[in-house]
Amino acid sequence: MRIAIDAMGGDHAPKEIVYGTIESAQKNPHITFIVVGQENKIREYIDKDLKNVEIIHATEVIEVDEEPVKALKKKKDASMVVAAKLVKEKRADAMITAGNTGAFMASGLLTIGRLPGVVRPALAPVFPSTKGSGTLVLDVGANMDAKPEYLVQHAMLGSIYMSKMLGITTPRVGLLNIGSEPSKGNELLKAVYKMLEESNLNFIGNIEARDIMEGSCDVLVCDGFTGNILLKTAEGVASTIFNSLKREIKGSVFSKLGGLLLLPAFKRLKKGLDYREYGGAPLLGVKGACIKSHGSSDRMAIMNAINQAKMFIEKGTLDEMARELTNRSDTIEE
Amino acid sequence: MRIAIDAMGGDHAPKEIVYGTIESAQKNPHITFIVVGQENKIREYIDKDLKNVEIIHATEVIEVDEEPVKALKKKKDASMVVAAKLVKEKRADAMITAGNTGAFMASGLLTIGRLPGVVRPALAPVFPSTKGSGTLVLDVGANMDAKPEYLVQHAMLGSIYMSKMLGITTPRVGLLNIGSEPSKGNELLKAVYKMLEESNLNFIGNIEARDIMEGSCDVLVCDGFTGNILLKTAEGVASTIFNSLKREIKGSVFSKLGGLLLLPAFKRLKKGLDYREYGGAPLLGVKGACIKSHGSSDRMAIMNAINQAKMFIEKGTLDEMARELTNRSDTIEE
Repeated sequence: MRIAIDAMGGDHAPKEIVYGTIESAQKNPHITFIVVGQENKIREYIDKDLKNVEIIHATEVIEVDEEPVKALKKKKDASMVVAAKLVKEKRADAMITAGNTGAFMASGLLTIGRLPGVVRPALAPVFPSTKGSGTLVLDVGANMDAKPEYLVQHAMLGSIYMSKMLGITTPRVGLLNIGSEPSKGNELLKAVYKMLEESNLNFIGNIEARDIMEGSCDVLVCDGFTGNILLKTAEGVASTIFNSLKREIKGSVFSKLGGLLLLPAFKRLKKGLDYREYGGAPLLGVKGACIKSHGSSDRMAIMNAINQAKMFIEKGTLDEMARELTNRSDTIEE
Repeated sequence: MRIAIDAMGGDHAPKEIVYGTIESAQKNPHITFIVVGQENKIREYIDKDLKNVEIIHATEVIEVDEEPVKALKKKKDASMVVAAKLVKEKRADAMITAGNTGAFMASGLLTIGRLPGVVRPALAPVFPSTKGSGTLVLDVGANMDAKPEYLVQHAMLGSIYMSKMLGITTPRVGLLNIGSEPSKGNELLKAVYKMLEESNLNFIGNIEARDIMEGSCDVLVCDGFTGNILLKTAEGVASTIFNSLKREIKGSVFSKLGGLLLLPAFKRLKKGLDYREYGGAPLLGVKGACIKSHGSSDRMAIMNAINQAKMFIEKGTLDEMARELTNRSDTIEE
């Protein structure tokens, strides 16, 4: 197994990315790690000579605020692009990056390419839930102009992912909507509802946004615009609450003491609610295990993403997806 | 001034609704309050004989889980419908309810009717923000199939509301989108962006969902589907965090003590983040001051909603909206 790592993406690149990779490499001697990026910068953080770590030099870096498709076209020797090419050329089975999310999706779509039958790959983070093991939400990739067929395909890809990765036999599939009745939502959602009902998936109906974190389903399907709003709203609300809490705690001696006593509780809570703790977001529907780790990834997050990629490959997730795509008589037109 | 109150809507009806109204009536002897609902039940909570409180008997109640339009058609003598009729017939200037949101919007649209030129009235709660006095978000009313013209009209209605109610001279109008560039989003949003740029409103561009609570704009425009997802996500995340916090605090003696010391801080925080504290949500674009108070409203929330309705009327908000609608050359077709 060979895993390509974009060493230059994320707030703590390359240091934390390289450290996370080295630690994983020591634990997984049978996996080859290909660290992609500016070699001199990468070498600063490699003090051991590991047989299963290779470095591939890439001169350029895609910045977090660059326009994805333009960046991809302009920076042909960017670390992320080179990592994606390794997957494309089957010199790697997986790629991991903590860099520009849009560029990650674009390199999955344009460089690596889609599984036969897939029209829109979906970015699929796991949302934390108070019960169960989280909900895979897809697509959150800000893809515009969804068609019913895309969402149904995402439901299938998400179900296979959750069943392979978490061992859930028949993952419960929900459709994000503004009410539980089948008649709710726009024409897109009504059509998707009907198609999911008729599918062989374990479709449990519409799910309202306020119920997601209660673990009401394993796979939640939505169009890429709505998913993006959902993800960003959740991020914004959670960070506002935690920041306000911090400010409140600093307010008096009593609250400072209270904050100290509650520190372990706060840490557990923050961890439990942080979707980053649930690993990176896979890009489902492309020809490889492509994992987007959060921009603020530290070495631990990178190690998690590596484990995720490893499991993705070991479980034959991609083959299962390809098989299911072939079995389906419905062909989707772009 | 005459304000109609639906005494039968909300989790704590009629008790808290009546108590809130009575308290407001004592403070505002110049306002007449018309309490609508089952008279015997209402009388249980009225121990004083106030000259400025009238009761209008209505036999039926629209339940919170009823299908709005059906309920409206079936229950012609429902308290909410009767209250709306009072506004329609100009026997009241305002109506307040803590009942079924869908039925509230439907009775605004169907019973009271729209201001001339308005196609879709918008439900517009104020979102809390850490800076400033909150953001009016509209539409969150789960209206489907928005057109660019509707959203631009909502921006105008929202701007007038925030300028009248909060004294903000030129409210900053933002457009909810998945990125800040004008090219972001679907065709609807691109068209709205252009129209808002060309309008006389203080349009400041696209706003991402994660930045709303930072107070980046005063009026945030979105279609009713997206707004509903936004609102419900925020509700779900906040309540999950607070519930988890409660559970964590109960975990040990130390955390219990910590929780006790932090109780005032938690209360302030919860209050600051609770959009209910920012008053009820007006339904903008109908011929009256119609305020939807939260389902869990207590007497304080009802008193807040009454103050809001009072201000809405006193400031001539409706006249200003009607004037602006007439001034605009652009006519909107349904």
